[in-house]
Amino acid sequence: MIVESQLAHFPSISLDNGVTLREVACAYETYGTLDDAKSNAILITHAFSGDAHAAGVDSAGRPGWWDNMIGPGKAFDTNKYFVICSNVLGGCRGTTGPSSIDPATGKPYGMKFPVITIGDMVRLQKMLIDSLGITQLLAVAGGSMGGMQVLEWVAAYPDAVRCALPIASSWRHSAQQIAFNEVGRQAVMFDPDWNNGDYYSTGKPPARGLSIARMVGHITYMSDESMRQKFGRRLRDKDAFGFDFDVDFEVESYLRYRGAQFVDRFDANSYLFITKAMDYFDVTQGRGALPTVFENAKTRFLVISFTSDWLYPTYQSLEIVRALRSRNREVAFVELESNYGHDAFLVEVGEESEIVRGFLDSTFKENAARLKECA
Amino acid sequence: MIVESQLAHFPSISLDNGVTLREVACAYETYGTLDDAKSNAILITHAFSGDAHAAGVDSAGRPGWWDNMIGPGKAFDTNKYFVICSNVLGGCRGTTGPSSIDPATGKPYGMKFPVITIGDMVRLQKMLIDSLGITQLLAVAGGSMGGMQVLEWVAAYPDAVRCALPIASSWRHSAQQIAFNEVGRQAVMFDPDWNNGDYYSTGKPPARGLSIARMVGHITYMSDESMRQKFGRRLRDKDAFGFDFDVDFEVESYLRYRGAQFVDRFDANSYLFITKAMDYFDVTQGRGALPTVFENAKTRFLVISFTSDWLYPTYQSLEIVRALRSRNREVAFVELESNYGHDAFLVEVGEESEIVRGFLDSTFKENAARLKECA
Repeated sequence: MIVESQLAHFPSISLDNGVTLREVACAYETYGTLDDAKSNAILITHAFSGDAHAAGVDSAGRPGWWDNMIGPGKAFDTNKYFVICSNVLGGCRGTTGPSSIDPATGKPYGMKFPVITIGDMVRLQKMLIDSLGITQLLAVAGGSMGGMQVLEWVAAYPDAVRCALPIASSWRHSAQQIAFNEVGRQAVMFDPDWNNGDYYSTGKPPARGLSIARMVGHITYMSDESMRQKFGRRLRDKDAFGFDFDVDFEVESYLRYRGAQFVDRFDANSYLFITKAMDYFDVTQGRGALPTVFENAKTRFLVISFTSDWLYPTYQSLEIVRALRSRNREVAFVELESNYGHDAFLVEVGEESEIVRGFLDSTFKENAARLKECA
Repeated sequence: MIVESQLAHFPSISLDNGVTLREVACAYETYGTLDDAKSNAILITHAFSGDAHAAGVDSAGRPGWWDNMIGPGKAFDTNKYFVICSNVLGGCRGTTGPSSIDPATGKPYGMKFPVITIGDMVRLQKMLIDSLGITQLLAVAGGSMGGMQVLEWVAAYPDAVRCALPIASSWRHSAQQIAFNEVGRQAVMFDPDWNNGDYYSTGKPPARGLSIARMVGHITYMSDESMRQKFGRRLRDKDAFGFDFDVDFEVESYLRYRGAQFVDRFDANSYLFITKAMDYFDVTQGRGALPTVFENAKTRFLVISFTSDWLYPTYQSLEIVRALRSRNREVAFVELESNYGHDAFLVEVGEESEIVRGFLDSTFKENAARLKECA
């Protein structure tokens, strides 16, 4: 599969906090071919630490973060669909974020970067889609924070989305979700190397704080059961307790490793800005009650949750489903069995694939029939 | 109620890691009066951040951590029972721990303190009970880490415990429980002020790391639902988002406050040693399968869990119950309805009180009859 990796440039974007951000870049990848009617475009929205590289293999040999779902013959079938994925605003993987150069100063934004929202991320995606000449997306699909972008898309641009797939997600961040993010932010900001966000010139990022934040994250992405299965109480390279504060258990080793690894690929300030955007997210904000938000959308919904996901529990998906149903909107819902916790949408893709494939297929056919009728 | 606050001294204690710790102090409080037969003594074992001050009001006007359960006419009725609570080994509230003076150097132990176990904590409690001339406790009761000590008591000293009340606890720490503790430890040890545990002379404890650890802790002690009820998405002293990294939400303010507050009352090295003891805890270690551990105990059990406690979930209590049942041991089990999460055993005490009261009462009567018969 050919991976087209590109960078779009925009002179400016207006943000929810009133600021206009200038000279904005948006990194994106596409897979498959846009049809003549421009009716087969699917936007994939990524989760907190994701990027534009959703599928295929990049120049470094790295597979995309949802490569098991996107490709020829896969759920998001690139033989049929034109799939787009962009790095979010505020990110650190090509799209403008706090580690980007502020054109006004010639230095990285750092904490001068404006506090952004999920709405801002989606606004930039809309500018990208417009620039590709696409007026309506066949689908917008994403898990976790990606699901929030999906909901925001339908709320902000109801005519631009034929079908929406919010997966393992929520229509507003709960107190517990905010709490975990806040701990991560405090860990980063407490690290002396954070230096008020100005660490790009020191070459010493707040590695300790960011790795603590990531360790907390990883616990919340797994489930009690998946941790039991993966680690249990197995010791790491020893037969008995060390009676010291080195690694005793496998799970400790895993968390330390994942924490340290994250520092190499993610910007600590992006961590702050993106988690803040998630915490601010409430799709009803300024739009009335939840059923009202989607009242005028002709979008079909497929809502998916996972049994062992305690970070974005099923009840949060069901609230979306109930709101849509109360306005007689078209919505399918499945709760998939999985022990993988929140990670399930990324790893437990067997049944997820079948369900997504069927839903996209029927939407595509229905849409094609509609377009034919209108032609 | 009269609170007797005392300090017991022991020349030494042998620890599970082979070390002998010298000149050990044990802070304890007692409430009520020991009867002539010494048959009405109840040992209360505290949770991770607890101390010997379980009930009544101390000289600073501070109520005990389980004052709603212990006192005249309460579940642990001090009109009937002689209640004892001691600070655990490794603690920082009177009992010898890493902040205590090492007699060999005249300086605080810091990281030279030996890595201790739940077994070591219980061994010191046994020495205390022996020193009070009590050969058998009517009951040992405690929640969370207190429950681990309860189980260890029965495993180590089966004849010394008439009845055992492990509440909201586990017979071994799970991967997820270890993981949360490990994050807290790493946060402490990553704080430059931790200084390899040698911060007593600097007057600058690792406040940032310890407060991060405590923030994580507080999230795990509550439930998604109790956080929703207590905080929801309410903003703190503002009508709209600040679009900065100050406090926006009530829940952020609460966590920051509780984190900062903890630093004033708890020693960071004690945090390390006590969480390590919890992670090492597996009551079956060196004792065979779980049913075997309690095979010879004549102890009656009351096991209590709470519906919304996701840190020490009900299934972990049920594993204890099943093991006891498989050897036809006497065990009562209740799962109490509560939204308070793991905190429930401390705050949702209405039904808990009734159940504990009845169980203690019947054990006391049965024990009195048995003593009469033997006399």
